[in-house]
Amino acid sequence: MRILVANPNSTGAITEACVTLARAAVAAGTEVVGWTNREGPPVIDSVHTDYLAGATLVSGLLAVRPAPDAVVLAGFGNYGTGAVKERLEVPVVSMAEAAMALATLLCHRFAIVTTTPRMVPYTEDLVRLAGFEARCAGVRAVSLPPLGEPRPEARAVVEALVEEVARAGTERGADLVILGGARLSPYAADLRRAVRVPVVEPVACAVQAAEGLVRLGLRQSAAGKFAPPPGPPTL
Amino acid sequence: MRILVANPNSTGAITEACVTLARAAVAAGTEVVGWTNREGPPVIDSVHTDYLAGATLVSGLLAVRPAPDAVVLAGFGNYGTGAVKERLEVPVVSMAEAAMALATLLCHRFAIVTTTPRMVPYTEDLVRLAGFEARCAGVRAVSLPPLGEPRPEARAVVEALVEEVARAGTERGADLVILGGARLSPYAADLRRAVRVPVVEPVACAVQAAEGLVRLGLRQSAAGKFAPPPGPPTL
Amino acid sequence: MRILVANPNSTGAITEACVTLARAAVAAGTEVVGWTNREGPPVIDSVHTDYLAGATLVSGLLAVRPAPDAVVLAGFGNYGTGAVKERLEVPVVSMAEAAMALATLLCHRFAIVTTTPRMVPYTEDLVRLAGFEARCAGVRAVSLPPLGEPRPEARAVVEALVEEVARAGTERGADLVILGGARLSPYAADLRRAVRVPVVEPVACAVQAAEGLVRLGLRQSAAGKFAPPPGPPTL
Amino acid sequence: MRILVANPNSTGAITEACVTLARAAVAAGTEVVGWTNREGPPVIDSVHTDYLAGATLVSGLLAVRPAPDAVVLAGFGNYGTGAVKERLEVPVVSMAEAAMALATLLCHRFAIVTTTPRMVPYTEDLVRLAGFEARCAGVRAVSLPPLGEPRPEARAVVEALVEEVARAGTERGADLVILGGARLSPYAADLRRAVRVPVVEPVACAVQAAEGLVRLGLRQSAAGKFAPPPGPPTL
Amino acid sequence: MRILVANPNSTGAITEACVTLARAAVAAGTEVVGWTNREGPPVIDSVHTDYLAGATLVSGLLAVRPAPDAVVLAGFGNYGTGAVKERLEVPVVSMAEAAMALATLLCHRFAIVTTTPRMVPYTEDLVRLAGFEARCAGVRAVSLPPLGEPRPEARAVVEALVEEVARAGTERGADLVILGGARLSPYAADLRRAVRVPVVEPVACAVQAAEGLVRLGLRQSAAGKFAPPPGPPTL
Amino acid sequence: MRILVANPNSTGAITEACVTLARAAVAAGTEVVGWTNREGPPVIDSVHTDYLAGATLVSGLLAVRPAPDAVVLAGFGNYGTGAVKERLEVPVVSMAEAAMALATLLCHRFAIVTTTPRMVPYTEDLVRLAGFEARCAGVRAVSLPPLGEPRPEARAVVEALVEEVARAGTERGADLVILGGARLSPYAADLRRAVRVPVVEPVACAVQAAEGLVRLGLRQSAAGKFAPPPGPPTL
Repeated sequence: MRILVANPNSTGAITEACVTLARAAVAAGTEVVGWTNREGPPVIDSVHTDYLAGATLVSGLLAVRPAPDAVVLAGFGNYGTGAVKERLEVPVVSMAEAAMALATLLCHRFAIVTTTPRMVPYTEDLVRLAGFEARCAGVRAVSLPPLGEPRPEARAVVEALVEEVARAGTERGADLVILGGARLSPYAADLRRAVRVPVVEPVACAVQAAEGLVRLGLRQSAAGKFAPPPGPPTL
Repeated sequence: MRILVANPNSTGAITEACVTLARAAVAAGTEVVGWTNREGPPVIDSVHTDYLAGATLVSGLLAVRPAPDAVVLAGFGNYGTGAVKERLEVPVVSMAEAAMALATLLCHRFAIVTTTPRMVPYTEDLVRLAGFEARCAGVRAVSLPPLGEPRPEARAVVEALVEEVARAGTERGADLVILGGARLSPYAADLRRAVRVPVVEPVACAVQAAEGLVRLGLRQSAAGKFAPPPGPPTL
Repeated sequence: MRILVANPNSTGAITEACVTLARAAVAAGTEVVGWTNREGPPVIDSVHTDYLAGATLVSGLLAVRPAPDAVVLAGFGNYGTGAVKERLEVPVVSMAEAAMALATLLCHRFAIVTTTPRMVPYTEDLVRLAGFEARCAGVRAVSLPPLGEPRPEARAVVEALVEEVARAGTERGADLVILGGARLSPYAADLRRAVRVPVVEPVACAVQAAEGLVRLGLRQSAAGKFAPPPGPPTL
Repeated sequence: MRILVANPNSTGAITEACVTLARAAVAAGTEVVGWTNREGPPVIDSVHTDYLAGATLVSGLLAVRPAPDAVVLAGFGNYGTGAVKERLEVPVVSMAEAAMALATLLCHRFAIVTTTPRMVPYTEDLVRLAGFEARCAGVRAVSLPPLGEPRPEARAVVEALVEEVARAGTERGADLVILGGARLSPYAADLRRAVRVPVVEPVACAVQAAEGLVRLGLRQSAAGKFAPPPGPPTL
Repeated sequence: MRILVANPNSTGAITEACVTLARAAVAAGTEVVGWTNREGPPVIDSVHTDYLAGATLVSGLLAVRPAPDAVVLAGFGNYGTGAVKERLEVPVVSMAEAAMALATLLCHRFAIVTTTPRMVPYTEDLVRLAGFEARCAGVRAVSLPPLGEPRPEARAVVEALVEEVARAGTERGADLVILGGARLSPYAADLRRAVRVPVVEPVACAVQAAEGLVRLGLRQSAAGKFAPPPGPPTL
Repeated sequence: MRILVANPNSTGAITEACVTLARAAVAAGTEVVGWTNREGPPVIDSVHTDYLAGATLVSGLLAVRPAPDAVVLAGFGNYGTGAVKERLEVPVVSMAEAAMALATLLCHRFAIVTTTPRMVPYTEDLVRLAGFEARCAGVRAVSLPPLGEPRPEARAVVEALVEEVARAGTERGADLVILGGARLSPYAADLRRAVRVPVVEPVACAVQAAEGLVRLGLRQSAAGKFAPPPGPPTL
């Protein structure tokens, strides 16, 4: 089985990090292929960049040859997940949706920690649209520096994550945390050592879900919201 | 005051129809200017075309000179409304949001009738995201033919609308209807003669709301979800 | 066009303040007329006074000659808004409903600040009944002294408002504030200078909405909740 | 113990019918006293009459001597229930609230049948405001003639009720029905013989609840929404 | 009338305490009989013990002779309340459900205080399942020691309760508190002296509700969720 | 990896059918072991049998040697899922929860079809408790005969399923269906040939989810609702 891990932004380093996480999560025999949305913005930190990313994702993914058995959208956002589901005939898994869906099996209420306070309302909309409000204890944020700037020390990031996890637990009863951004995924292992709650890393969740769908022969419904659109795909 | 009526798709005839409706609704002294998203798709009938439209809207609107005092997004959808609100410094009014907001003042529960059954789930998501679920009696659809095909007889469209309005009333207690698509707006007058419930035509609503915001000196909040994004606007 | 700004309580000074705000907000050519509910209580600070106000509003407003083109209920409450909508044949706009409806176009989640802690649950019910819970970050209160007592210093009121706005932002993510009481409206300009979030002053919103409805030829639906009641209007 | 059964409208015959139902429901030793809101409207069939009724209820009830141990508001509506709770120092029980609260103990989802289609949205608001939406399968209506007209045959009313109960069960899974209006209460016994679902008659519920509160020494909270208002009670 | 107060756990001392509370609450002429679930666990402090308790409740209660007129489940939890309602032909009242239902008549939003932080999510599920989320300001906990250990000083427990009540009021607007556990019931009287909000003690509520149902001739609906199961009762 | 497929009822034939479905779904190298709750009831068709099943599940599963790497609860219900999650240190996956979680990735709104009308409210509670209400288009039922009776013809069952799927689509917009009961799982393949919407068979979903959790090193959170209970596990 061949799963395409599609990074909605144009930053190859993030694609690579995601592919590494994905490869560590799949079953033997599953091939993971990375794909970078070269036409997209380098980082998705606004609704505007969400749309810029989403607009080029579909045609980019339709052009991938050979076509993969499933596609994982490796970003914690929307950027036209529905558009990709409409247009592709293979299972399409949003890593945000997969992480929230898996979390419902493991906890009472999950918290999401995202990469910047600016994206909290955006992420709340994501939760609302997916219908997970009753299970979400809230969206919190650390503050990663912009992509071009020097990377912060891992210890500082993990400490900030630990603090947000603690507050989500105390104030809102969160008993699980989802890392809400591919840039946070590399800190998952360290964070797990520091907190008692399960830490859900979405890339791994999503490739697992994608593998499962391929094995089960399931994909997004073509009978409603994700029915193939009337116009040509290469619009 | 100068209000830009921005058609998110590339079909000039729809822009013109919207401008006509807008001009009939504004106060004396308000200038209405049409704008067509020439880079966008000819019609928005899927999430994919929603994203294609949204991706080019922002840069297109930023380039308009002279800058208008307010922008009305003249389509009953999302296509990156949030992105436009982030990037523009003038009030940005989505006609879908304006129609639903106005409807809450006038009824117990509104129904929305959209242009094709395919867009019902898409429109339900719009309602959910805007938080109007408690006031929405449901989304229904007539079936307009694709843009290129011959226009249906007005009488047939109005009859179909009347039937959907009747069913929304009987089955779900709707006591107001919103026309959920710029292509339905021209039938508003005929529909009003045929039904007892108020018929909300969103283009007119939206320009009124835009005028109001300009007079009140209000625009979308820059303190949260619609704060200016970190990257450059012309991305 | 002639808009009646109806103060549901009997305090003429509040009517005057509302009329001033209204006149500053309407388009050229719109006449604003004040009306005071002389039979009502001097202030509405309980459910009891809400009912006393509402009971006399309808017959009082029906008697206004010449009949206005629209009525604005200039108080941040209920006091039988539905009764007025049932009985009058012109558009009736509650300033609380208008402010919340407009706020949905401008923010992620609005906060309401009311004039006394006692009215917080009352105002929460207003939000719930209008169906704006998903968009409301909470109701907070400053503590204005009773009407008869000396007016507090403007600076103290504004400081208290600023503090509530800050807390609503930090704790609940509010990115817009609605002034929840006609007595707070005069502080809108000062508050705007002190906070980053948009400040919605409901009287101005409501007259704008009323003007818009008159221009659009719309009024509350007579097909359901606001259908004319069976009995005589002058009950 | 002495319980006042307060009819919010001015029609003595309805008071008497309610008192009869109440007396059949109380424990030995509980005295039931009827009270008619002589200043109110003869029937409450609109928001307007709701407000007219509510405005005179408080002062009327405050004047009752000797003061009862509890008050039951014997109408299926609002008419200022909160105002009465604010002003009276004895337990105040709305028969609508009592019926819904009791129903939650007995079923999966209750239906309410009210006396006229016009009051369906009004009653839906009542359900929403009390927070029982998750347990309510919907509000339906039969069509009783206006008060002054000849009373319909009991058999016809019961048949209409049976039909509404059946539809609420089939379409929405209702497994209990609440009679939503004092005028329907006399048909409870006949309806019980005709349907399998429990039939909740609200007057009886409410006097039971009132008795219970008196015995438990409980009344509405004075610490929030129902705190005594600042102004004088006899406003 | 004879009401069985059924303690779902096997600790006789708790049964006795409940019976005492129940006897103080019933009308003259109502007999209260205690019953202990001897086959159940000594305390219900987990979902596991909830299920152990519930599994033996039904057969135990079916064997009670003479059959009571109503059964009160005297624990603040679930342990198969629905199973008992399915199998018994007399009214079955859960004390948790009865307390929440009664609270809705008396307040804006109630808080529940339970006996250990571990049971907060469990109790939140109880609130959600019963549909009282809109009226619940939150579940809080004190920390009672395990059953076998020495009882804490009453003063310390009451102080802890007072603190939780205060925080629920300040942070979430709670204006009534429900004691969420039979072990907390004995502190009701002391707590009432220390706080302004009504304190609902669920055992008393539940026996009152049970008496009321017997008098009204009502019991749980057999037309849906609580229909008699197909298999034999003594399974 | 070794996954235990635990049938909560005592009917070995159902265990076998589930094991067959599970084996067809797992990755190479995953061992599937069946386990039957011999102490439980033969079928779970009520809350009572749910509790009887749940009460013996925990101790039964704790005794399994060698301990599996994950446990799948192979019934579409509750029967103490939370109790098993509390007590076991390996991932525990409810097939109902897994099916709903997976469905959220694939559709706009899913319908569940259960095995008997009697279990519709029970299943609705399951949906509500898991927080999937916003994504569930409703629970419907076919009518399988009791276990002991002759099995119905496959064609008749599939036809009944097809009809329910069609109605869920037309009336409520469902674009995916979940088979809500292990007894329906064998009809999945036939149903897929007959309908356009994806058919989710929960056993396969659940084993996939269990495999995924083992690979990811995740299990239910021990930091809140599913923390190990204070008492001994073999209670």
